[in-house]
Amino acid sequence: MGKTIAEKIIGEHAGKEVSAGDIVVAAVDVAAVQDGTGPLAVQQLEKMGLVQAKNPERTVLFIDHAAPSPHKDLSNAHKILRGFAKKTGVDLSEVGTGVCHQRLVESYVNPGDILIGADSHTCTSGALGAFATGMGSTDVAVGIALGKTWLRVPETIRINVTGEFREGVCAKDLILYLIGKITADGATYKALEFGGETIEKMAMSDRFTLSNMAVEAGAKTGLIASDATTRAFLESRGRGDKFREIAPDEDAVYEEVIEIDASTLEPMVSAPHTVDNTSTAAGLAGTKIDQVFIGTCTNGRIEDLAIAAKILEGKQRHPDTRLIVVPASKDVYLDAIAAGYIETFIKAGAAVMAPGCGPCVGVHQGILGDGEACLSTQNRNFQGRMGNTEGLIYLSSPATAAVSAIKGEITDPREVL
Amino acid sequence: MGKTIAEKIIGEHAGKEVSAGDIVVAAVDVAAVQDGTGPLAVQQLEKMGLVQAKNPERTVLFIDHAAPSPHKDLSNAHKILRGFAKKTGVDLSEVGTGVCHQRLVESYVNPGDILIGADSHTCTSGALGAFATGMGSTDVAVGIALGKTWLRVPETIRINVTGEFREGVCAKDLILYLIGKITADGATYKALEFGGETIEKMAMSDRFTLSNMAVEAGAKTGLIASDATTRAFLESRGRGDKFREIAPDEDAVYEEVIEIDASTLEPMVSAPHTVDNTSTAAGLAGTKIDQVFIGTCTNGRIEDLAIAAKILEGKQRHPDTRLIVVPASKDVYLDAIAAGYIETFIKAGAAVMAPGCGPCVGVHQGILGDGEACLSTQNRNFQGRMGNTEGLIYLSSPATAAVSAIKGEITDPREVL
Repeated sequence: MGKTIAEKIIGEHAGKEVSAGDIVVAAVDVAAVQDGTGPLAVQQLEKMGLVQAKNPERTVLFIDHAAPSPHKDLSNAHKILRGFAKKTGVDLSEVGTGVCHQRLVESYVNPGDILIGADSHTCTSGALGAFATGMGSTDVAVGIALGKTWLRVPETIRINVTGEFREGVCAKDLILYLIGKITADGATYKALEFGGETIEKMAMSDRFTLSNMAVEAGAKTGLIASDATTRAFLESRGRGDKFREIAPDEDAVYEEVIEIDASTLEPMVSAPHTVDNTSTAAGLAGTKIDQVFIGTCTNGRIEDLAIAAKILEGKQRHPDTRLIVVPASKDVYLDAIAAGYIETFIKAGAAVMAPGCGPCVGVHQGILGDGEACLSTQNRNFQGRMGNTEGLIYLSSPATAAVSAIKGEITDPREVL
Repeated sequence: MGKTIAEKIIGEHAGKEVSAGDIVVAAVDVAAVQDGTGPLAVQQLEKMGLVQAKNPERTVLFIDHAAPSPHKDLSNAHKILRGFAKKTGVDLSEVGTGVCHQRLVESYVNPGDILIGADSHTCTSGALGAFATGMGSTDVAVGIALGKTWLRVPETIRINVTGEFREGVCAKDLILYLIGKITADGATYKALEFGGETIEKMAMSDRFTLSNMAVEAGAKTGLIASDATTRAFLESRGRGDKFREIAPDEDAVYEEVIEIDASTLEPMVSAPHTVDNTSTAAGLAGTKIDQVFIGTCTNGRIEDLAIAAKILEGKQRHPDTRLIVVPASKDVYLDAIAAGYIETFIKAGAAVMAPGCGPCVGVHQGILGDGEACLSTQNRNFQGRMGNTEGLIYLSSPATAAVSAIKGEITDPREVL
C-alpha cells in the first residue's frame, strides 16, 4: 500500500512500516524549545533527573518570543535556558538571532528529519520534507533527553494546487483561503500534504508560509515533497549535502484530497478573532488600521521584506498607522540591509526591530491599545494574542500589509500594484 | 554685574535683567513631554479645561520610553498622546522616531531658547546654548497651554576644562569623573556651565553627553556657549539661520569654579547603584558583564556608534554577554546603516532595536535577570532602573562598553585600542 510523506518519514524513524492510525515510538533528529516553553521543559528534565541532551548538536534553545526581555520574570526564565545550555552543550540562539522556525529551516532541519518543537508553528520545517511538529514542553523535554518520542501516525489530507497566482496574490492568500474553507479544526491531528504544479513552481519562502500555517487548521504538520527548489535552498545555507528526495508514493492513501485552482484566488484577510474568519481584502476594504506588522515565522523572510519594500519605496506610512517591521532572523536582517530594504522601511516611517517574534506573541514590541486594529503578516489572530483582549487582529500577506500601511486602512494590494 | 548664560537666557525670556535667586515668570519656546509623563500632562490640561497649546509647532509629544509598547496600559497611554496631538495640532514623534532629547536637539531647540520638558534629561539641549530643563508633568502642561513657566534663576557652577583627552578617554569619562567628584547632589538646582579650551574644541555630540548628565549632579541644566561648532551642527540640520551667539559675560558671577585637566582623566565607570559611585575602568576590570547596552540620549549618536563599530568590526561579543544597540534617532539609524555600523553590530552578535530609549528606563528591550550585570552607555544606574532591583548597572563610555562586550567583563578600552 502506497505511503504518504508522513508515513514514510515516521516509518523510517520507527524502524518499521507504519500506517495512519499506528502509535509508534520514533527517533527524533532535531528538538527545540523557545523561551516561553523551554524553561518548563528544563524544569521537567530536572524533576526527572535527566539534565542531558541525547543529541546536543541538534538540540536548540531559542530566545525569540520575548527578546530582548520586557520583564524580569522573563529575564529569569532566559537565565534557566542559558544555564541548561552551559550544562548540556546544546545550542542557544540568543536575543536578536531570530525566530526559532526561521532559524530551524536555515540551519538545523533536513529533508526526512523528525523535528519536535515546543511551539505550535514547528510545522514550518515541513516545507523541507521533514516531519516537523509542535508538542508540549514535557514531551519535547523527553525528546531532548532520550532522542525519541511517541507519535500517532496522522492521516493525511492532500492539498493539490494548480494554476498560476494572479498578480498581488501569494502563498499567504492561498493558506488563508484554505483555512477559511476547511475551518480552524478542519485538519485536527492530520498531516496536510501540499502538492501540484503550483507548489512545484513555488519558491521555498512561500512553501514555508504554507507549512507554517498548517497548524491553524489543526494539522499536526504541513508537508511538501523535497525537490530541486529544496536542494537549492539547502545549498544556499551550506547544507547541500543534506538534500534527499522525500515524496509520497503515487498510490499513497489520503483521507481526503482538496483541489485548489490558484488562479481563482484573491488577496485574503482573516478578520478577528479566528484565522478561519476569512474574507477577501476587497471585502474588508476601508477597515481602519492603527498598526501594521510585517514579520514573523510566517512572513518575515527576505522575499517577504522585498515585496513590502518595493511597495513602500519612496512612500510614507499613513500618519495614523504605525508600522513595525521585524526580520525573521539575523541573516534576513543582514540581507535586508544589503538590499536597501531596511533603509526603505525606516524612511517610510517604520520601527525596525531586532530579529525575533516581535509583537506577534503579545509580550512586547507593539501591544495594541483598547479598540486598536492591527493588520499583521503573522499566523494567528486569536483574541488577546497581541497582548490586549480589546485589540483586533487582521491577518494578510506582506503585499496587503504594506499597501494598507500607506492607506491607513485595509486595501486590496492590486489597487496600487 | 556680569551675567552667566542661565541669567542671560532667563532674563531675555522674563523681559528684565535677572540674577541668581530671582523667581521669575519666563516665556517658553519649546515644551515637550514623553510617553511616561505626557499622559499625565494631558490629563492635567483636561482637568484645567486647557486642552490647547500656545505654540503647537514647538510643542512635541514623544513616544520613546516604551516604544513600541510592551504593555496594553502603556499602549492606552500612547492613545492619550495621539488624541491630544490630533486635537491641538502639536507634533507627535511616533514609535521608532527616537529619544526625545536627541530629536529635540536635531529638530526643535535653538541657541537662546528656553525648553521645558517633562523628563529629567531635558538638560541635554543645554549644549546648544539653550536653557533646557526638566520639570514635572503639571508644570510642563501649564507651559504647553500658556507658553510660559516660573523659574528660580539658578546659581551657576562653572566647569573649566583644559588639556587634551588621552586616547580612549572621552566626554563621558569627563562627566562621570565630575559627578564622582562633586557627588550626585553636588549641583542641586544649580546650572552647570561647561567651558574652557577642551570644551571649545569638543564635538557637538560630546557636548550633548556632558549637558545630558548635568542632572545626575542634581543640576537644573548644563549649559555650553554656542560657537562655530554649534553653528555647523545647526546647519547640518537645516537650521543654520537659527544660530546665535550665546556666551556668559567675562565678569559673570559664579557660585563656584571647578577646574579639570582632561589630560589626567582615565576611562571611568559608575558602579551600582549611584552615578557618583565612580571608579576607573581599570579599577573594576574583570567584573563579569551579562549585557552591554550601547545607545540612549547620552551616547546613542552616530559618533558614539562609530566608536563602538570601529572596536566591534570583525569581532564577536563574548558568548556570555548579550549586546543591545539602539540608535538615538531615526536619522542616526539611517546614518549608521549607510556607514556600515549596523551591519558590523549585527555581525558582532548585537540585537539592534528601533530608535528610542531601549532598555534604559526598565520597561522593555533588555530587562536584567536577578543578579545580572549590565554595562550601559546610559546616564543613570539607580537600583531597579533597568526593570529589576536585583540587577546591577554600570555606566561607561561607548568605547569601554564595546571593548567590554567583546571581553565579557569590564575592560579598560586602552587594552585593545
